[in-house]
Amino acid sequence: MAKFIDVHRGMEGITADQLMEAHRADLAIEADESVHFRHAWADPETGTVYCLSEAPSAEAVQRVHERAGHRADEVHQVTLEA
Amino acid sequence: MAKFIDVHRGMEGITADQLMEAHRADLAIEADESVHFRHAWADPETGTVYCLSEAPSAEAVQRVHERAGHRADEVHQVTLEA
Repeated sequence: MAKFIDVHRGMEGITADQLMEAHRADLAIEADESVHFRHAWADPETGTVYCLSEAPSAEAVQRVHERAGHRADEVHQVTLEA
Repeated sequence: MAKFIDVHRGMEGITADQLMEAHRADLAIEADESVHFRHAWADPETGTVYCLSEAPSAEAVQRVHERAGHRADEVHQVTLEA
């Protein structure tokens, strides 16, 4: 399965509870798109959130995020890892 | 130890070997700054590289990357995870 990192901006001040809630909202529906969100990291100061996922396509990642109410600003397929 | 995600742009066409070499260059000197680079992901198509690290500060992360020859465009302290 391909891996993706997506980025959400404008999340200044996001709390631990809000991040967990958003992540749970993704996990609750991700199977519909054969996506799995593995991890999310947030920098509340600059309002940036990064999600790492496995998915069939960038569009599938975005569809889950959109349905969960938080469209990503960027979705990158990360084909290389080290 | 705090966690950081840093971003490198303009890396269009980066190869698996180049990513590994860059990551190894970081690992070779990271101890000087008490930094540990845990993982790197690259999207060669958009030229974006993400690094996940543990470090005492964003400045320490940047100093390692600079000495290794690849200054990051952004360094974000990710204080929240899910």
